[in-house]
Amino acid sequence: METLRRTLEEIKPVDVQLMEEAQKRLDNLTKPKGSLGRLEELARRIVGITGKKKVFLDKKVIFTMASDHGVAEEKVSLFPQEVTAQMVENFLRGGAAINVLARGVGAKVVVVDMGVAKKLPSHPNLIVKKIGYGTNNMSRGPAMSRQEAVESVEAGIEVLERKLKTEGVDIIGTGDMGIANTTSSSAIIACITGSRVEDVTGRGTGIDDEGIQNKIKVIKRALRVNRPDPEDPLDVLAKVGGYEIGGLAGCILAAAMHRIPVVIDGFISTASALIAVKLCPLVRDYLIAAHRSAEKGHQIALGYLDQRPLLDLSMRLGEGTGAALGIALCELSVKILNEMATFEEAGVSRENG
Amino acid sequence: METLRRTLEEIKPVDVQLMEEAQKRLDNLTKPKGSLGRLEELARRIVGITGKKKVFLDKKVIFTMASDHGVAEEKVSLFPQEVTAQMVENFLRGGAAINVLARGVGAKVVVVDMGVAKKLPSHPNLIVKKIGYGTNNMSRGPAMSRQEAVESVEAGIEVLERKLKTEGVDIIGTGDMGIANTTSSSAIIACITGSRVEDVTGRGTGIDDEGIQNKIKVIKRALRVNRPDPEDPLDVLAKVGGYEIGGLAGCILAAAMHRIPVVIDGFISTASALIAVKLCPLVRDYLIAAHRSAEKGHQIALGYLDQRPLLDLSMRLGEGTGAALGIALCELSVKILNEMATFEEAGVSRENG
Repeated sequence: METLRRTLEEIKPVDVQLMEEAQKRLDNLTKPKGSLGRLEELARRIVGITGKKKVFLDKKVIFTMASDHGVAEEKVSLFPQEVTAQMVENFLRGGAAINVLARGVGAKVVVVDMGVAKKLPSHPNLIVKKIGYGTNNMSRGPAMSRQEAVESVEAGIEVLERKLKTEGVDIIGTGDMGIANTTSSSAIIACITGSRVEDVTGRGTGIDDEGIQNKIKVIKRALRVNRPDPEDPLDVLAKVGGYEIGGLAGCILAAAMHRIPVVIDGFISTASALIAVKLCPLVRDYLIAAHRSAEKGHQIALGYLDQRPLLDLSMRLGEGTGAALGIALCELSVKILNEMATFEEAGVSRENG
Repeated sequence: METLRRTLEEIKPVDVQLMEEAQKRLDNLTKPKGSLGRLEELARRIVGITGKKKVFLDKKVIFTMASDHGVAEEKVSLFPQEVTAQMVENFLRGGAAINVLARGVGAKVVVVDMGVAKKLPSHPNLIVKKIGYGTNNMSRGPAMSRQEAVESVEAGIEVLERKLKTEGVDIIGTGDMGIANTTSSSAIIACITGSRVEDVTGRGTGIDDEGIQNKIKVIKRALRVNRPDPEDPLDVLAKVGGYEIGGLAGCILAAAMHRIPVVIDGFISTASALIAVKLCPLVRDYLIAAHRSAEKGHQIALGYLDQRPLLDLSMRLGEGTGAALGIALCELSVKILNEMATFEEAGVSRENG
């Protein structure tokens, strides 16, 4: 609990003064005022987050955290549970979508086993922070103990801080892997935002209408059986969350503490962000929502976080794939600020009036 | 006219069969079916456009074509006409937004003087295809002769083919620079789509409400004085177009002929695409709309082209800035197809049922 407490205490507001200065510079660059739209907003926000006038986002890291979910036994996913472990191995061999997209945007993928239901062979690129071999079935009782919830968040903090210390981190993306983790995320989102389960429960990997009805029933049962307290995010995480969701929440908190921009991926990452923001509302200003997932209810969660996503490409894969694209936009936005000529430098006439 | 005729004749439909094969491969990759959304659509379309099973988009080129517009004297822009030439010099020095974004996504910028109202100093990276020193004021008569319209389109074809021959081109983006060219583009879009001028006329570089009223009046006068025939795209281009708009239309046609994907930038580029598609409807399938510009009426033009833009970032700068971002997404999409592991290769279990 000490690591978490310290992290929460050290999170500071973003630097609004520097954001204003960044906007002044943006207005002096050779383009009509505001004509780069959300790229300008991004550049300004990243300056405020980092507290640096000139930001370089060379070290881009996507944390893809994997874990299993006991609720998978309720047939809420199209895929068998073994896929979580298989996909982790796919990540480590570099053949998954997140590997391809991360390479494409120059980001590293850090794969973390937060609680896969199988002992994975050791691998130089696998960080093992196993809190357990999958959570318990949340539709029959708490997914994990409160102690485990704290441990999962603190493990996320440690993973980020270790990476920061050893290699440096300029911007992070969040990513997830875990069969049945949209079920857990829907429960978290319903609980924290006060939404109806029906409004925040989607098809996940692609279940049919009957599957959705079952999934909704399972989530409702989980909320009824556990009665998580929406004002106590660790209670929500423990009762209906997952180890990777806790790990990502920790990653997000640590990034905010170290003034590192956090690019949020899709549905599961946003559930993690809800936990993080409930633990410390200042975190909200450190978040950049990469995209609107095709998963139903994502918009509700983004709305709760006051986030307008950058992209809307009907993606719903997770792993950090949306975050990879968002990171590319972030990097381009700071290049605009760093590399464009001003009107004066370029000898370009200004607008009239 | 010979170059244009030959180009139009040689444009073929995209390869639908290969697109189906690409989708089959996408469905075999280690991810839930369809979960990469529009990235999958992009990859599939690019395979169909190029006619190649395995596509590499290494040579990315943005054609930024510049020209002046006689109608600038009607005070339709915030910026003085001299800015067109000044910005071309900014492009050549590498300090403009398009330079920064193109570098950021690994694309080259080819700057073409199609008709800037000033003799520009020669520069190794400037291609000069000057059709004239700016067009005539379209609100008082035709912007250019029909002969000049053909010449501008053919110049665009030549620029692309020259680049293709000397350095190779795997994908192109379109870009523009020309004070008052949103006025010309609005006239083209109103004429070809049959829309009200009010519905396709926006603030350009940032004019106020009074400025917009004036701009609408000027465009209406141009359409009344010239009566361009919407079924004759060269007539539309001649009467209310611009040299850079003709050049870009030529570029688009030549790219389609050579089966090169064309990433369309914003408002002006889309007006060029309307001309190209009116000349040869098959071109439509070669277009990838990068973004929805904040410029009013862009959506109407995109709708006419059956294009759903990839991005919606409130950008309205032109130069090819939106195209640069779109090109990055295209490249990532083909990497997915080329680099991801299949279920079989990765030993990942498939979905049930």
